[in-house]
Amino acid sequence: MGHSSVKITHKRVVVCLTLFASLPYHPRTISGGPVISTINNMADVWEAYRHEVDGVENRVKKNLDSSVELVNTVAAQILSGGGKRIRPLILLLSARLCGYTDNEHHQLGSIVEYIHTATLLHDDVVDEADLRRGKRTTRRVWGNQISILVGDYLYTRAMCRVVEFRSQGINEVLAEACKKMAEGEVLQLYYNGNPAVPEHDYIKIVEHKTAALIAASCRMGAILADASEAQQESLFRFGQYLGIAFQVADDTLDYTANGESLGKTIGQDLRQGKATLPLLHLLKHCSEQDAAMIKDRMETRTLSPTDLERILFLMNEYGSVTYSTERAQTYINAAKRELDNFEDCPARRALTVTADYMITRDR
Amino acid sequence: MGHSSVKITHKRVVVCLTLFASLPYHPRTISGGPVISTINNMADVWEAYRHEVDGVENRVKKNLDSSVELVNTVAAQILSGGGKRIRPLILLLSARLCGYTDNEHHQLGSIVEYIHTATLLHDDVVDEADLRRGKRTTRRVWGNQISILVGDYLYTRAMCRVVEFRSQGINEVLAEACKKMAEGEVLQLYYNGNPAVPEHDYIKIVEHKTAALIAASCRMGAILADASEAQQESLFRFGQYLGIAFQVADDTLDYTANGESLGKTIGQDLRQGKATLPLLHLLKHCSEQDAAMIKDRMETRTLSPTDLERILFLMNEYGSVTYSTERAQTYINAAKRELDNFEDCPARRALTVTADYMITRDR
Repeated sequence: MGHSSVKITHKRVVVCLTLFASLPYHPRTISGGPVISTINNMADVWEAYRHEVDGVENRVKKNLDSSVELVNTVAAQILSGGGKRIRPLILLLSARLCGYTDNEHHQLGSIVEYIHTATLLHDDVVDEADLRRGKRTTRRVWGNQISILVGDYLYTRAMCRVVEFRSQGINEVLAEACKKMAEGEVLQLYYNGNPAVPEHDYIKIVEHKTAALIAASCRMGAILADASEAQQESLFRFGQYLGIAFQVADDTLDYTANGESLGKTIGQDLRQGKATLPLLHLLKHCSEQDAAMIKDRMETRTLSPTDLERILFLMNEYGSVTYSTERAQTYINAAKRELDNFEDCPARRALTVTADYMITRDR
Repeated sequence: MGHSSVKITHKRVVVCLTLFASLPYHPRTISGGPVISTINNMADVWEAYRHEVDGVENRVKKNLDSSVELVNTVAAQILSGGGKRIRPLILLLSARLCGYTDNEHHQLGSIVEYIHTATLLHDDVVDEADLRRGKRTTRRVWGNQISILVGDYLYTRAMCRVVEFRSQGINEVLAEACKKMAEGEVLQLYYNGNPAVPEHDYIKIVEHKTAALIAASCRMGAILADASEAQQESLFRFGQYLGIAFQVADDTLDYTANGESLGKTIGQDLRQGKATLPLLHLLKHCSEQDAAMIKDRMETRTLSPTDLERILFLMNEYGSVTYSTERAQTYINAAKRELDNFEDCPARRALTVTADYMITRDR
C-alpha cells in the first residue's frame, strides 16, 4: 500500500509537470518558473528566460520564408551574427511584468529583432562600416546593394508579421518607432563632420536612433498584456531612458574600450565624423588650441594615433568619460524608478538587472 | 414677379452648387463630375480627376512634417521631382469605380506615392543611377547616405499614416506589396550581370518590383470602397497585369526611346547588367557569336556605341522589340478584361484609358 501510494504521488507529479509544460509560461504564477532570489546578474536572466528567448529564436528562423532564396541566405547570416536579442528580451519581460500569460510575444520579439537588424544593415552602409561584433559586416561580405535591399526586406517582412496581431496600438507604436529611427539617422548624418552639435540635439539623435525601438518594445509587451495606459506609459519611459543610457554608454565605450572586446577600434566615431557626448564635453572644457585640433581632425577625417592619444589624455584630464558615464547612470536610475510602478516579481527583477547590464556590457 | 422669380432661381442654382462643393466627390452620382464621353485620352483623365489628384498632392505635402528639417527638405525635393502620381490616380479611380464617395483615398494615394518614392531612392543608390526623369538623382545631389535614410523615412512615414486607417485589409495588402518589392529587387540583383535569366524569373522580378504596388493600389481603393472580395480580386489582377505591362514596355523603351524624352540613355539596362525581355528574346534567337558578344559586354560592363548599334540592329532583325511590345499589349488586354466585371462609368473609362497609356507613355 505504502509503495502504491508513493507510485500514485509520483504519477501526480508527472501529470502536474506535463500540465505546466503545456500551459503558457508565466513566471509569477507557475511554480518552477524563475523566482526573484535567483536573478542576480545577466547570466541568471538569460538562464531564467532561456526558453522564452529560444521561442523568439524559432520565430526569427521561421519568418525567413522568402521565395527568393538569396534573401533568406543573406538575412539568415546577419540574423545569426551574434546579436544578443536584447530588444526581444526586454519586450518579453515587459509583457510578463504586466501579467501576460500567452506566447505571442515570441513572434513580436522576432519582429523587433528583424527591424533592429534592418537598421544595422542600412547603418553599416551609411557608416561604411567594415566590422560589427568583431565580424565583417554584411556590406563587406555581400556588398552595399544587397545590404540595402535585404534591409528593406527585413523591414517589410516585419510589417507583414506585425499587422497579423490586429492590434491598432502595436501597429502605431512600431510604425512610430521606425519613423523615429530613420529621423535619428538623418539628424546624425546632418551633423556629420560637425563638432558643434548642441547637447540637446545629441540626446535627440540618441533618443530617436536607439531609444525609440527599445521604448516601443517595452510598450508593445505591455499592450500585448492588456496593461493599463499608465503602465504602458511607464514601461515606454523605462525603455526610453534605458535606450538613451545604452547609447550614451556605447558612445563612451568608443573612447575607452579594448578594441578587441568591442569588435571595433577606439575613436571610430570621431573618425566617422560623429561628435558624441564625451567629445562634446571635452570640446566645452579643453583649450581653444586643442578644440581647434579636434575640429580639424573631424572635418578632415584624419586622426593620427598621436592625435587620438592626446584626445584620450584630455578626456581623462577633464573628466569627459566620467561625465558621460555618470549621465548614462542617471538615465538608468530614472529607468529603474519607473519599475517602482510595478509589483515585485521575477520579470521586474530581470528588467532591473538588464537595465544595469545595458551600461556595463562590452557589447 | 417675373424678375423676382428669376432671382429665386438664381439663388437656387447657387445653393445647389454650394451643396455640390461640400459633398464628397463622386463622378457617378454628381452631375458636373466627369462623364464617360469626355474621357478619350490621358489628358482628359487628368483633367476630369484634377481636383482628386490635387487632393493627393496636398496630402503628399502635409505629411512631410518631420521635426528633422533635412528630412523634409530632401523628401520634398524628390517628391516634387516630376512624378506623374500614376499610382495614386489608379488607386482613386479604383475606389470611385467601386462606388466610394468619401475622400480618404487622397491620403491613401499619398501613402502609396511615399512608398513608391522610397523605392526610387533606394533603387537609384543600388543602380548607381545619375539621372531620373531627366534630372540628377537625389543620390547625385545629396549623396547615397541621405538617399538611403530618407528612403527609410518615407517608408516608415507611410506606415505611420496607413495604420491610421484602422483597416486590417489595407495594412495587409500594403505590407505584402512592400515585401514583394524588396524581394523583386533582390532577385534582380541576384541575376545582375547574368544574361541567362529564365523568362519566368524575369516576369517574377517585374511582377514583384513593379506590379506589386500598382496591384495593391487597386485593391486598397476597392477595400476603401467596401467592395466585394470578387471585385477586390479583380482589381488586384487588373493592377498586376497593368504593372507587368508597364515594366515590360519600360524595359523595351530602353532599346527604342529617344534618350532625351526618356531622361536616360539607350541601352542603360544592358550597361547596368540587367537582362530584360527584348534582350532575352534576342539571345534566344541570334547567332552564337552575337550571343557571346552580348554576354561578354554584359559581364564586363563594357558596351561601345558600335556594340549597341549592332544589338539594336539585331533586335530589329529578330523582332525582339516587337515581341516585347506585343507581350506588354497582351498584359494590357488581360487587364482591361478585368474591367468587364464592373459597370460602365467614368472611372472605368478612365482606367481603360490609363491602361492604354501605361504602355505608350515615354515616362
